[in-house]
Amino acid sequence: MRLRHKPHAIDKLEEYSQYVVNDPGEIKGHWQKRFVNENPIHIEIGCGKGQFIMEMAKKYPAINFVGVELLSSVIIAVLEKQIEEDLPNVQLLQVNASDLTHYFEEDEIDRIYLTFSDPWPKNRHEKRRLTYKNFLAVYETILNTNGELHFKTDNQKLFEYSLVSFSNYPVKLKEVYLDLHRSDVKDNVMTEYEEKFSNKGKRIYKAVLQFPKK
Amino acid sequence: MRLRHKPHAIDKLEEYSQYVVNDPGEIKGHWQKRFVNENPIHIEIGCGKGQFIMEMAKKYPAINFVGVELLSSVIIAVLEKQIEEDLPNVQLLQVNASDLTHYFEEDEIDRIYLTFSDPWPKNRHEKRRLTYKNFLAVYETILNTNGELHFKTDNQKLFEYSLVSFSNYPVKLKEVYLDLHRSDVKDNVMTEYEEKFSNKGKRIYKAVLQFPKK
Repeated sequence: MRLRHKPHAIDKLEEYSQYVVNDPGEIKGHWQKRFVNENPIHIEIGCGKGQFIMEMAKKYPAINFVGVELLSSVIIAVLEKQIEEDLPNVQLLQVNASDLTHYFEEDEIDRIYLTFSDPWPKNRHEKRRLTYKNFLAVYETILNTNGELHFKTDNQKLFEYSLVSFSNYPVKLKEVYLDLHRSDVKDNVMTEYEEKFSNKGKRIYKAVLQFPKK
Repeated sequence: MRLRHKPHAIDKLEEYSQYVVNDPGEIKGHWQKRFVNENPIHIEIGCGKGQFIMEMAKKYPAINFVGVELLSSVIIAVLEKQIEEDLPNVQLLQVNASDLTHYFEEDEIDRIYLTFSDPWPKNRHEKRRLTYKNFLAVYETILNTNGELHFKTDNQKLFEYSLVSFSNYPVKLKEVYLDLHRSDVKDNVMTEYEEKFSNKGKRIYKAVLQFPKK
């Protein structure tokens, strides 16, 4: 994604500290403090401009959502939506996915969403793909025993790569959809990318996974 | 597949006992007797009219192939091809896949091909699908340690089902192709069905799997 440079993004992220976690070191194991209740926590890694997480948060008020996004020029768009909506069950976190164990305690998370992650198509960039084994190890640590990984993409090669990566880790497949929008799944919430790619006639792939009991 | 009734098929299968194994009880652990060498054995389960196995046998003369097909009205078509070709590395076996452990010794097989198996779409027929866990247990028994399961289908629902079944057994994915004919795989040999469905523009799915070390 290319967005115009937003020099005031960082200031704004610091200003709205009720929505954006700016002191992540103290939050590990204490996410409930950021929400008004102890409801289950779902995180979206790479939440982009936030259409998915904001819609999910409205649809599922009994779930607390954390949007994770590294780029300040992108996460600012989610923040602007949240300033307007003021949803009590949305928090934002600007970190790299590989560092999530610094911000979440073991078993602190109920579900992780990976939505339309960068496919990093070159072989030499395999380690950057969010379904590479090192990332799976991060997800395994922070997800609780019954926690689930929900992965959606339009990128066939990334999905193929990920199925093999899941199988070898191993993460167990609970469900798989090779053409989500022509499946019988009824409650699919779309990301910005998903709407765009699906409108172009591209297939959307989805997998729901669970780590074997630790 | 629906073929016209062939009343003389059974007679013919018995007549050509050099190509068709008619006394399977004595063959278990002794398949080399049926071939002129001790080359690796690959079997195709549900070999249909035999286009795939006959082409594979010509392409890979250093592999011994066993075509497994339950229906005499279908396997007769392979036999007729083999009577004409007289390939030294093709044998036929008319049995149910669930009974394969009665005909093959543990670790006797190097590779199993499942090609365009019946999808049995109704839930109540799940146990008949050739990727149901009970069949996977049969394959695990007769495949040797480095043996592989090669699965191709045009049926999206069967492929989805099978990915979940493989993951839960578990059988490990080595390779997966979600659109085989538009992938970079060069040496694909097609079955009759594959040609027909691919010509209609349908995607062909393929998975290559291996059982974790026993």
